[in-house]
Amino acid sequence: MSFKCPVTDQRFVLDHVVGIGDLTNDLEIVDAVLEGAAALAEGEFAPLNRVGDEQPSRWNEGEVTTPPGFKGAWRSFVEGGWMGLSAPEYAGGQGLPLILSAALMEDLNGANLGFALCPMLSFAGIEALDRHGSDELKRDYLPKIVSGEWPATMNLTEPQAGSDVGALKTRAEPNGDGSWRLKGTKIFITYGEHDLSENIIHLVLARTPGAPGGTSGISLFLVPKILPDGTRNDLRCVSIEHKLGIHASPTCVLSFGDDDGAIGWLVGPEMGGMRAMFTMMNNARLNVGLQGVGIAEAATQRAVAYAQERRQGGKAISDYPDVRRMLLRMRALTSGARSLVYYAFGQADRGHRGDEGAALRADVLTPLAKAWGTDVGCDIASLGIQVHGGMGFIEETGAAQHLRDARIAPIYEGTNGIQAADLVGRKLGLIGGAAFDLLLADIRAEAADPRLIALVDAVEIAATTFRQSPSEDRLAGSYPFLTMCSILVAGWLLERQANILGDGAFHDAKRASADYFLSVIVPEALGLAAGAQSGASLLYSVAVEALA
Amino acid sequence: MSFKCPVTDQRFVLDHVVGIGDLTNDLEIVDAVLEGAAALAEGEFAPLNRVGDEQPSRWNEGEVTTPPGFKGAWRSFVEGGWMGLSAPEYAGGQGLPLILSAALMEDLNGANLGFALCPMLSFAGIEALDRHGSDELKRDYLPKIVSGEWPATMNLTEPQAGSDVGALKTRAEPNGDGSWRLKGTKIFITYGEHDLSENIIHLVLARTPGAPGGTSGISLFLVPKILPDGTRNDLRCVSIEHKLGIHASPTCVLSFGDDDGAIGWLVGPEMGGMRAMFTMMNNARLNVGLQGVGIAEAATQRAVAYAQERRQGGKAISDYPDVRRMLLRMRALTSGARSLVYYAFGQADRGHRGDEGAALRADVLTPLAKAWGTDVGCDIASLGIQVHGGMGFIEETGAAQHLRDARIAPIYEGTNGIQAADLVGRKLGLIGGAAFDLLLADIRAEAADPRLIALVDAVEIAATTFRQSPSEDRLAGSYPFLTMCSILVAGWLLERQANILGDGAFHDAKRASADYFLSVIVPEALGLAAGAQSGASLLYSVAVEALA
Repeated sequence: MSFKCPVTDQRFVLDHVVGIGDLTNDLEIVDAVLEGAAALAEGEFAPLNRVGDEQPSRWNEGEVTTPPGFKGAWRSFVEGGWMGLSAPEYAGGQGLPLILSAALMEDLNGANLGFALCPMLSFAGIEALDRHGSDELKRDYLPKIVSGEWPATMNLTEPQAGSDVGALKTRAEPNGDGSWRLKGTKIFITYGEHDLSENIIHLVLARTPGAPGGTSGISLFLVPKILPDGTRNDLRCVSIEHKLGIHASPTCVLSFGDDDGAIGWLVGPEMGGMRAMFTMMNNARLNVGLQGVGIAEAATQRAVAYAQERRQGGKAISDYPDVRRMLLRMRALTSGARSLVYYAFGQADRGHRGDEGAALRADVLTPLAKAWGTDVGCDIASLGIQVHGGMGFIEETGAAQHLRDARIAPIYEGTNGIQAADLVGRKLGLIGGAAFDLLLADIRAEAADPRLIALVDAVEIAATTFRQSPSEDRLAGSYPFLTMCSILVAGWLLERQANILGDGAFHDAKRASADYFLSVIVPEALGLAAGAQSGASLLYSVAVEALA
Repeated sequence: MSFKCPVTDQRFVLDHVVGIGDLTNDLEIVDAVLEGAAALAEGEFAPLNRVGDEQPSRWNEGEVTTPPGFKGAWRSFVEGGWMGLSAPEYAGGQGLPLILSAALMEDLNGANLGFALCPMLSFAGIEALDRHGSDELKRDYLPKIVSGEWPATMNLTEPQAGSDVGALKTRAEPNGDGSWRLKGTKIFITYGEHDLSENIIHLVLARTPGAPGGTSGISLFLVPKILPDGTRNDLRCVSIEHKLGIHASPTCVLSFGDDDGAIGWLVGPEMGGMRAMFTMMNNARLNVGLQGVGIAEAATQRAVAYAQERRQGGKAISDYPDVRRMLLRMRALTSGARSLVYYAFGQADRGHRGDEGAALRADVLTPLAKAWGTDVGCDIASLGIQVHGGMGFIEETGAAQHLRDARIAPIYEGTNGIQAADLVGRKLGLIGGAAFDLLLADIRAEAADPRLIALVDAVEIAATTFRQSPSEDRLAGSYPFLTMCSILVAGWLLERQANILGDGAFHDAKRASADYFLSVIVPEALGLAAGAQSGASLLYSVAVEALA
């Protein structure tokens, strides 16, 4: 089966969830982007999805060779100007809303997640450099990243510093001329080395001399693979990982400064690294949420196609009620996840344009989009295998790859547990709770379905309890709470869309998805309320050793 | 980390859930079996788990080579007499209760699922031959299968006949001397060919001349790889599959009768194949439920060990509430699934001894044990990856293999959707509904927790609705209904165990597991009630094409 980008639903969601008309006057360009992105994803990225899975990126003596065909597809991407879609015009970008890059990325994720990771990290790098970089850095590097000639990377993790970024040990010493020398080892660096481009621009967190421990002492540096004088910088890819999925994507161990130190320049002020990093992270988190959506879309299409083809007992298996249930569940969750993640991007766009309420909504929505979007990706990919029966377990079918690829997304860019902690620890209390309450008020003002109202009530009760509870109790219930909030937002947005539907296959599917979501998935979320409020004492009533 | 068989919990469940004292007078042998099985699983099977994953069984010119070390471990298994644990004494077995073989299989599944599939299918084959085979077949084949010298296989599936077994096309023609000649192709045959033994005994479904279509016209044949005269039978392994998991297990395409026909003998009467097959299937379904339990146990142990070792922010990650939540959830679900599946085996044992009520309970419990047990296996394996963070996605860690291996179990031996259909289509109405009601009455007589009572009520309401509903509506809600019933039974059995706990780490873990299960998981099951009763019209409100 061949992957088709969901252009009709994307446009519908842009109109009725994002309100794209508020973000651009030129709706023709919106269609042009959706259609162009679909052509790129379907024509260039999707045909390489199995190739990349079966012939992973390979490491040899510090060099990484990407799978066959990737160089050509990357050239198409660069020549199409896709990297610059939402990038600032001063750097050669087109300055379009972020949400249009999001639609592009959803398509690429669905077509070939292992490949799409390369541009994803550049999108994050562009935003960080644009907001925090010096004029010189912007002049020297941003146009090349924006054009796609020099992809960017994010270097946070070290062996001892995963979720605890503040524990990193990479050090930077000043050269006296404005440049710095970095020494340290970074792990899990996506596209940290590859053969798609002449240069790679690493954005690296490190600690400067005398900086305090923890996150407050961290600075962000731009460290190019090739220095401005054309020489190779002192950094190398030591190895790449053997992973469950996204085989095409080289996950690198990078060693900085084995000799004299890797030369880099500060992005933002010294010890202002976490702020710059959060710019990248927030962008990347929304984009990882889109990975869940893209995989869910691809897995749903594959399962629907197979279920129509495969016959048992004299009829297509799609005619059996439980298979139909799985297919509709897949479509409903995919549609709900797309609505939520696009809404979050749209609010971020409005925030960038000065709408403070929207910026606050985006802050609250980011952990939901990342965590629930990626949970949906895994659940749908797993259901997709189930629809295929025995064939789903055979690698050649392609259904299994979706699950293997999807499984990373709940982990990287802040595990989903970290997202849940962010929601109850920071976002729930943002400006005294007003940011979260703003979102609930939006929903209360519009939602009509009684099951949705019951869920708003349950979320509000849990939120009120959390605000009066010690941190441990909030954290103990954070994950089910995040899921409840996410399903609430998605259900609200699906109900809104269902209210303005017309006739035809697309509208029927949208209506059925909303019905299923409100009838089945929203009640499931109500079943999570007990877990959200069960408190920490239950979890700590037994020593962890006893659980082994 | 090294896998440890959960001997303490197994013994506790045998005592308080199974009532092992009713099944054997010799409780010393129970301990001896648990300890011996643990030694075998930990010492011989577990060390080969990664080996089998990384060096899958290989096919060459019809021969299959198992991974390095498998032959030696298989020899230990055979020499230990493990295959005959529950086999009839007349065939050289020890005649112990089935539940003790179940404990053995749980251990082997947890240690090395890809390997454990070989004995699993022999257990099913022994039961079918014992109950349905002629005296001659029992004399000539059963002792060798029981000793483990000649492993057995199950040959049901054909390319066009998966869930619809009745569509099979393999044909058998009589030779006139009591033997038959078979021609046809079978797919997805687990350990259909290998180098562990001199002979392999295939149990093959085929259609005899003039037999009607569908399942009523099917007969079961015993077809050995090597004929009694020492010559090779006319069957060959054409290829093996490239799968998501259980790489060690060769999944074979077997071609029967490329030349004159493969020689075989009827097991049971002509056209009585489905009855014999269901004997094998029911045994195999409970055993597949155990696969979920075994994988869940292994994944839980691995995650607990990692979470205690891995430090972030100055403490072990197991000290963070959301990680603790995941670990307790893993332990609680594993404990609940073990209780349910062991209970089902215990009822089957009692049924074999003439207890008709127990036989009915086993009938009702079989789809729950198979489907929910395997769903738990997948969910826990996925949570195990999440606990590991980025390391969980790296294959060398071993967490990812658990998910890859676990993912087949909801599919084979009747997909979980088929199990749900069996529950609402056949088991719910067994002897006019009395079998199902018997189970609910058992629970009502003992369960005290109000959340459990609420779940019994919800299950009863759904069951009552189903009995008044058209088949399509029952099937539409069958999957969530099955999950509700399973969680109800597991919660009931965990509450019972919690009532008799003492002091110490094991008892603390058991108590916390029961608390978590009743506080969090039972309420989640209540959230499924809406889906169970949402009916078929919702599912069919849209053409399936529109979901693509």
